[in-house]
Amino acid sequence: MKHPMFVHEDIPTVEVDRLEAVHRPLADSVRELVEATIRTTVSEEEVALARAEVDAVVARLRASQLEGPAGVRYNSEARSWSWGNAVVGERNAVAPPLEITEDEDGGVHAETVLGVRYEGPPGMVHGGVAAMLLDHLMGVAASASQRLTMTGTLTMRYRRATPLGPVRLEGRIDREEGRKIFVVATIADPDGVTVEADGVFIVPSWAT
Amino acid sequence: MKHPMFVHEDIPTVEVDRLEAVHRPLADSVRELVEATIRTTVSEEEVALARAEVDAVVARLRASQLEGPAGVRYNSEARSWSWGNAVVGERNAVAPPLEITEDEDGGVHAETVLGVRYEGPPGMVHGGVAAMLLDHLMGVAASASQRLTMTGTLTMRYRRATPLGPVRLEGRIDREEGRKIFVVATIADPDGVTVEADGVFIVPSWAT
Repeated sequence: MKHPMFVHEDIPTVEVDRLEAVHRPLADSVRELVEATIRTTVSEEEVALARAEVDAVVARLRASQLEGPAGVRYNSEARSWSWGNAVVGERNAVAPPLEITEDEDGGVHAETVLGVRYEGPPGMVHGGVAAMLLDHLMGVAASASQRLTMTGTLTMRYRRATPLGPVRLEGRIDREEGRKIFVVATIADPDGVTVEADGVFIVPSWAT
Repeated sequence: MKHPMFVHEDIPTVEVDRLEAVHRPLADSVRELVEATIRTTVSEEEVALARAEVDAVVARLRASQLEGPAGVRYNSEARSWSWGNAVVGERNAVAPPLEITEDEDGGVHAETVLGVRYEGPPGMVHGGVAAMLLDHLMGVAASASQRLTMTGTLTMRYRRATPLGPVRLEGRIDREEGRKIFVVATIADPDGVTVEADGVFIVPSWAT
């Protein structure tokens, strides 16, 4: 963890976990609100009222807030957290959030349910959302739980549309050449693979 | 517009525009709420209270709602709208939303400001978010404002990290071969291009 932008915070892991448990339910409710905002057919008066209430909540939350980036933080027990991350951030309603599991064989996988806020074609996952999730999962696969990597190139092959609903992502390192790590990954619906991806990840020279 | 999943709705354009103006402010407030949820450092009691208030708004919005996909709709005046789209949907707080302009030369561009909810590395746009936005913009470039296309393959080359803040995306058709359309695109910060992309888009056989 020598990344110059990572912030060390001297908070015990038990407290990090507790704070996460406090904030996660709020973010989950905001995730529901994002979807309700898309689907609602209530009256204009109700929409205006809802907006005023949301604005009031925003003002209260902003009474005390972190400035600058949400960031990636870690403590002395090597627990790290990136609550604001757009793909895995527990506190970021843009993120599902994806919960990535490292398998014993070195691969990684994640399962999630993609709702209406990830829609592209009617009833289907936006192709860009599939790319976004795969990018992150592949970065985790490349890092092999210890080294820092940056995305070099990323190629997606769309076999067919991915319906909204449950999806499974899998990724693993295919091979390595010096500071280049070649990763392959897929996203699948219950009927099989819908998008294949391969990417080249780079270990920055300053991190080796 | 022969797509089997597009829904025709007999609503005059003036009414579509009016409804959009009613719902857009609510979605914009939800966008603020997503960011406030990431940044807030208020007390646990305040977080719990905020959650209860968000849940109450969700319940009110759900008193009457659209079931099924948000969809893509169009009227008899050829005005189409996809309010729920993850990249351009005015009513979807996952979307910036990107507002894509078609240039006279056939290219397309978009400018937006990416805030903390799109963060990956600290202070930087998530690489997957850049891919998501480029995917959509390139699809629009491929469609040339009239034909339906599907993403075949998409390749991103990350030159350097994109800081959170203002970005500009540009895309255009490079060449065509039968039902294949080759598109190139970039995303840039004020200092220049950060990510280059090329993609192959396909005109479905049933749409030709």
